[in-house]
Amino acid sequence: MVERPIGPVAVFGASNFPLAFSTAGGDTAAALAAGCPVVVKGHSAHPGTGEIVAEAVLAAIEKTGMPKGVFSLVQGGDRHVGAAVVQHPRIKAVGFTGSLGGGRALFDLCAQRPEPIPFFGELGSVNPMFLMPEAMKTRAEELGAGWAGSLTMGAGQFCTNPGISVVLDGADADRYTAAAKAALEATDPQTMLTDGIAKAYRDGKERFETRNSVRPVYTTPSEGRVANPNLYETTGDNYLQDHALGEEVFGPLGLIVRVGSVEEMVTLAKGFEGQLTTTIHMDAGDMADAAKLTPILERKAGRVLVNGFPTGVEVVDSMVHGGPYPASTNFGATSVGTMSIRRFVRPVSYQNFPKELLPEDLQ
Amino acid sequence: MVERPIGPVAVFGASNFPLAFSTAGGDTAAALAAGCPVVVKGHSAHPGTGEIVAEAVLAAIEKTGMPKGVFSLVQGGDRHVGAAVVQHPRIKAVGFTGSLGGGRALFDLCAQRPEPIPFFGELGSVNPMFLMPEAMKTRAEELGAGWAGSLTMGAGQFCTNPGISVVLDGADADRYTAAAKAALEATDPQTMLTDGIAKAYRDGKERFETRNSVRPVYTTPSEGRVANPNLYETTGDNYLQDHALGEEVFGPLGLIVRVGSVEEMVTLAKGFEGQLTTTIHMDAGDMADAAKLTPILERKAGRVLVNGFPTGVEVVDSMVHGGPYPASTNFGATSVGTMSIRRFVRPVSYQNFPKELLPEDLQ
Repeated sequence: MVERPIGPVAVFGASNFPLAFSTAGGDTAAALAAGCPVVVKGHSAHPGTGEIVAEAVLAAIEKTGMPKGVFSLVQGGDRHVGAAVVQHPRIKAVGFTGSLGGGRALFDLCAQRPEPIPFFGELGSVNPMFLMPEAMKTRAEELGAGWAGSLTMGAGQFCTNPGISVVLDGADADRYTAAAKAALEATDPQTMLTDGIAKAYRDGKERFETRNSVRPVYTTPSEGRVANPNLYETTGDNYLQDHALGEEVFGPLGLIVRVGSVEEMVTLAKGFEGQLTTTIHMDAGDMADAAKLTPILERKAGRVLVNGFPTGVEVVDSMVHGGPYPASTNFGATSVGTMSIRRFVRPVSYQNFPKELLPEDLQ
Repeated sequence: MVERPIGPVAVFGASNFPLAFSTAGGDTAAALAAGCPVVVKGHSAHPGTGEIVAEAVLAAIEKTGMPKGVFSLVQGGDRHVGAAVVQHPRIKAVGFTGSLGGGRALFDLCAQRPEPIPFFGELGSVNPMFLMPEAMKTRAEELGAGWAGSLTMGAGQFCTNPGISVVLDGADADRYTAAAKAALEATDPQTMLTDGIAKAYRDGKERFETRNSVRPVYTTPSEGRVANPNLYETTGDNYLQDHALGEEVFGPLGLIVRVGSVEEMVTLAKGFEGQLTTTIHMDAGDMADAAKLTPILERKAGRVLVNGFPTGVEVVDSMVHGGPYPASTNFGATSVGTMSIRRFVRPVSYQNFPKELLPEDLQ
């Protein structure tokens, strides 16, 4: 048995990663590593960058004598362009990073083809963090400031941005909130990558402003492409009753959920949809409580962390950047790390083959 | 990183394998091995067998102290029963062996769920064999008789039944055809597993009888559940023009396709849909011709064979029982062998976890 390339792969450029996840980004690298030709559908947010990178790839193809058809870039912001790419009979799989709405539409097209093909979509996440009582007792301020730093990194334009903190209500929660607020106040205004991302961020903030279920802790207006941070808080009861509070706001917007007990944390955890990451902050004294959360959190996410912030995603063998729907459309896959190649290969069994006819890597 | 179970798996009983692919068959074993609870939708062809096997599983659960929810059997031939099972929010994946029509309907339901889930369907195959000139010169009779044996094994009720032989027209093809015919004539009548399978076999034969593009070589009427073998032949041109000739007839029906050259074999191979298996029969002198076919055949099937018949499927590490659509709905998967477990696990990355909180297999 050997893994063989599955055929031409369509890769969709991501608005938030013009380099790491677009023309020559992770999906393209994984598909090429698997031995598959790549057709990139460039993102309309950065057509020029896409073009420059594509020219570099084409120059490399020429220099190394690779077949020219191994890479192409298709430009065009219209939805029909993307639809035509994923519906082409020669395309055998799709790699995508983007919004739930756009991703689900393409996923549906892939599933409805006469010959259905896999759609590997990474569709975002609120990346909840659970702050355990002993850790909060000893370092609520440090955790609050750390969260604010992770939340505002890259103007909050990371899929792994931790948008929600779940804490036990009380004095430690107050210290955490105050520290996060202070750190956000000290954050310089940041510029978002596109007008579309900036508008979606303002719309997301509007969603929070207009509901009684949340209390503003720190809010600042954002205009044009500038993104200022925003912080809200709510109770566990309100959170469970208002499904929209669990939807991703792409940008530096944080929500603190105050609960009455670790048991309520567990209830809240059970209610979360699929996530890219979930995080526990804990001290040694929190072990028994953390053990109640872990079996739930690992079912909800592709990566679970202890005492860290999820924003950074390392390209390593053990990385899983994916998770149950809607974090991704394919919970067995990762779009970052060595395992991302696995999406674009299929096993073939060679029975009783003479050595000369086997693929080179089997010989 | 460690592979974790994905959650409850629905397994559909197969009409043609009351034991190996139903209540306690390959899919159930793979899901349990992955750590997933199983809900079997029993096949209406053998409800009693399903019940007996389920009772044995339940007795084993009791004896070993496993949680009772780890296995359930749902009976009912109505389509709504199967639909309800795959649409239940707790079900996270489906294992299925059966027809293209029924499988595609369930695949669509899985893809259309609010939370889409993977559907691992094995939907059948015509398993074409390519007979190379030198091999035919030295052993056409042996090959023809061998094919007839593989074609009639288990009354032809194997997904891996080789329904099509592609040969070079001429005297060797005549010897092959005569030997296959003689072996089929000597085959005793066999009884099929269900009335439904037997009726579908008669319908498939009817499809061949009513078209001018094929010539009967040996045909016998079949009544009730009895299946007698049938053999037809056609030309490469006719085959390429009549798409229905490439559709599976489940049972001991063979089609010989006579072509004018090895190049025409290659053209024919390119036109085949996804298969569970493809086979080359060759001698040392056929190496150059076989090398033209191999790169195409390995893209068409999950298992490629040289000088063997595909009917037997061994449960081993290297087995791939799957392939491009419509052989299966998920070309990266196998429903037989150790790798079949991989369908029901998902990778989870544990970042900075204290040893006590890790799953036992990571500790």
